[in-house]
Amino acid sequence: MSDFEVVTEAVLERVEPDPAERERLEATADILLERTREAIADRSVDADPIRVGSTARDTWLAGEHDIDLFVRFPTDLSREKLEEHGLAVGHAVLPEGREEYAEHPYVTGSIDGFDVDLVPCYDVDSAREIESAVDRTPFHTAYVEAGLTADLAAEVRLLKQFCKGIGVYGSDLRTRGFSGYLTELLIMEFGSLRSVLEAASDWYPPVELDPEDHGERSFDDDLVVIDPTDPTRNVAAVLSPDNLARLQHYARAVLAEPRVGAFFSGTPHTLTPSAIERHVARRETAPIALVFAAPDLVEDELYPQLRKSLDGVGDALDRHGFEVLRCAAFARERAVLLFELEVAERPAVERHEGPPVHARDHAEGFYRKYVDTDAYGPFIQGDRYVVERERDNTSAAGFLDGEAVFSARLGPAIEDALRDGYEVREGEGIATLAEEFGTDLAAYFDPSP
Amino acid sequence: MSDFEVVTEAVLERVEPDPAERERLEATADILLERTREAIADRSVDADPIRVGSTARDTWLAGEHDIDLFVRFPTDLSREKLEEHGLAVGHAVLPEGREEYAEHPYVTGSIDGFDVDLVPCYDVDSAREIESAVDRTPFHTAYVEAGLTADLAAEVRLLKQFCKGIGVYGSDLRTRGFSGYLTELLIMEFGSLRSVLEAASDWYPPVELDPEDHGERSFDDDLVVIDPTDPTRNVAAVLSPDNLARLQHYARAVLAEPRVGAFFSGTPHTLTPSAIERHVARRETAPIALVFAAPDLVEDELYPQLRKSLDGVGDALDRHGFEVLRCAAFARERAVLLFELEVAERPAVERHEGPPVHARDHAEGFYRKYVDTDAYGPFIQGDRYVVERERDNTSAAGFLDGEAVFSARLGPAIEDALRDGYEVREGEGIATLAEEFGTDLAAYFDPSP
Repeated sequence: MSDFEVVTEAVLERVEPDPAERERLEATADILLERTREAIADRSVDADPIRVGSTARDTWLAGEHDIDLFVRFPTDLSREKLEEHGLAVGHAVLPEGREEYAEHPYVTGSIDGFDVDLVPCYDVDSAREIESAVDRTPFHTAYVEAGLTADLAAEVRLLKQFCKGIGVYGSDLRTRGFSGYLTELLIMEFGSLRSVLEAASDWYPPVELDPEDHGERSFDDDLVVIDPTDPTRNVAAVLSPDNLARLQHYARAVLAEPRVGAFFSGTPHTLTPSAIERHVARRETAPIALVFAAPDLVEDELYPQLRKSLDGVGDALDRHGFEVLRCAAFARERAVLLFELEVAERPAVERHEGPPVHARDHAEGFYRKYVDTDAYGPFIQGDRYVVERERDNTSAAGFLDGEAVFSARLGPAIEDALRDGYEVREGEGIATLAEEFGTDLAAYFDPSP
Repeated sequence: MSDFEVVTEAVLERVEPDPAERERLEATADILLERTREAIADRSVDADPIRVGSTARDTWLAGEHDIDLFVRFPTDLSREKLEEHGLAVGHAVLPEGREEYAEHPYVTGSIDGFDVDLVPCYDVDSAREIESAVDRTPFHTAYVEAGLTADLAAEVRLLKQFCKGIGVYGSDLRTRGFSGYLTELLIMEFGSLRSVLEAASDWYPPVELDPEDHGERSFDDDLVVIDPTDPTRNVAAVLSPDNLARLQHYARAVLAEPRVGAFFSGTPHTLTPSAIERHVARRETAPIALVFAAPDLVEDELYPQLRKSLDGVGDALDRHGFEVLRCAAFARERAVLLFELEVAERPAVERHEGPPVHARDHAEGFYRKYVDTDAYGPFIQGDRYVVERERDNTSAAGFLDGEAVFSARLGPAIEDALRDGYEVREGEGIATLAEEFGTDLAAYFDPSP
């Protein structure tokens, strides 16, 4: 056996569910399916429950206890009726369950240690005719079930675990990584973890895979995997360029030096306040942070808004001359927008370029506007008038502390949260964030690919 | 009389040479011409002395005492012979004179309070056939003498004085302004000072004048005045965009509010050390200056080198993150390159972007280069590797103090002068420059158009 095989054997040992675990899951799933059928019969509606997701496809990892049941309703049912029946069936099957909301409402609950979602959807004829994203899921399950042997399922488990280990697993909008379905398609395309990693090592984006050779449109994304069940969809649409690059980096690394540790991220370390102070002192940067109560949003809504706000405030800082070296957003009880600045202060004056002197009307207007003010000038540089006028914000802290920060592009919930109040922490003052954000700051100050 | 006429009358009163002054000059010039003819005859060479320049054209300003005599030699004379005869004649006419060097050597001296240049040139058939720039001068004089009435000569005096008053008179490479010949051509084109100023007020560059309508090529300059004696030459080639804009600005101002003061620059003011300190404190900038012995060069060589070095060091500072708000070069006994910085310090680390991770060979090389160093990273941003590595120069003073400053583009004589030694003055330390450069710093800190 090659080193690589030795490693993957050892990983499989850890991630392959054992027979007892499987049996328990199957038994529970059977009971749930039966209950669902009964609940449907009770409501005299024409519907059909099916199992979906990784536990249905046998690509789940040991310890994952998700059972996903979809109830497919006829397409001539109104959306209102679908929701009504769907929730009623859900509550009948999961009496202790609660309602959640994706594209439409569903019931989620816990039974015998398994997390169960009971989701209504439409029984469309093909994935191209879906009314909401959930309608597509049964087609994915059917496609994978049809094509995936037990050997391939083991390779899927390895690829999933590898993606988890390097932090790129999940198509949620916090992670923007590889979905389970995407890992399944990659294994079906390349045949093994090793082949996927070898291919990825050499990818030169844009990379396009089209397993069914039926793609009908083009995409701007770096990785395009045309959905075998829908020729108009890129399964990798949500994958960020960072995470694609990350997969390439770690693929090369694990092929060059196979080790079990590459598949498991280990316990994240954390930084003490004094360790943070040491980093700041060593880097001689000027960190500054907005700290506020994290808005009460699901991660799929929170993180896009945090990123938008981080970009927006970062751009505004840069525009005002407070140059950002690096920035990051963290969210736990509180949320943090952290900007590590190269330049935190600017002079009292700023250069302001006027029109060319030969553009007579503009030039005369500019000259009149400034000639009797405190500004230095107008003087001439090249063919233009220039003044050095008083700068509105001479420090990043002054800028972030005032109303000016709301001129930045902000996610709406972040703007609301800031309006409710925020603190500005500066310099070594960010060390006070260690208690809540110590692991986030450790990742920030000890960045790895 | 209009206000403008009242003003120009008063100015003419001051700048028009009075009859006694004229008479003295003409008498001296006649004696010099006669002496020159004798010296030529003594050398048995076929040559012809003529008067050129503003005193020959009657466009000189009261108090200017320059007599320029050119000796035209046949074109079949070798350059060596021309120089030999030229210098011999010069020394015969000006026994106390000394040799100077423009495109070829000539003799300059002083007689009865007049500054006399005795310059040899070739008697070419047209200004297009010149062998050096001085050969062109007699054609300029002939052209202006033929076209300029006494009334126009008065207008030339006014325009010259106006250009002097606003600091744009002279085609030397320190000033880069309007030459005497250019002011003469402008008056011949527009007919009066007032008409020149009215036209200039509305110029929208590029502006092209071609009095003889014979231009043969195009120019990139903002103001193009085709030489009436040479269709391939722009008389305004040396004029800087700043000085053109300055003329436009002050033309509008003096037309809107005519006053004698506009024609005379007045005594330049100066700044005390404490006044300089107050400016720096008010502006909250970080001035930094290189101070060194001024190279022993004529102004036409010194100032282009100073400007080149100012640009070069300014660009290098900007490139290293030390952002320049404004800069200036001064030269007296010592020379100064002054940079007023917005940012004088940078963190200990700098961002260094590597190749895209997918560019495998480059990416692997970059990763290997940095992975085991003190740099933060490599980490991934977008599709690239990035490190934060130690910055070479964290302060502008450190950069200017060390060998790094010689990586900037420098004029060769400036580089030599710096190699011989220089001081760096920083912050309020530039106040110590007040004694030698007080008037330069006054113009810098109280800039006008």
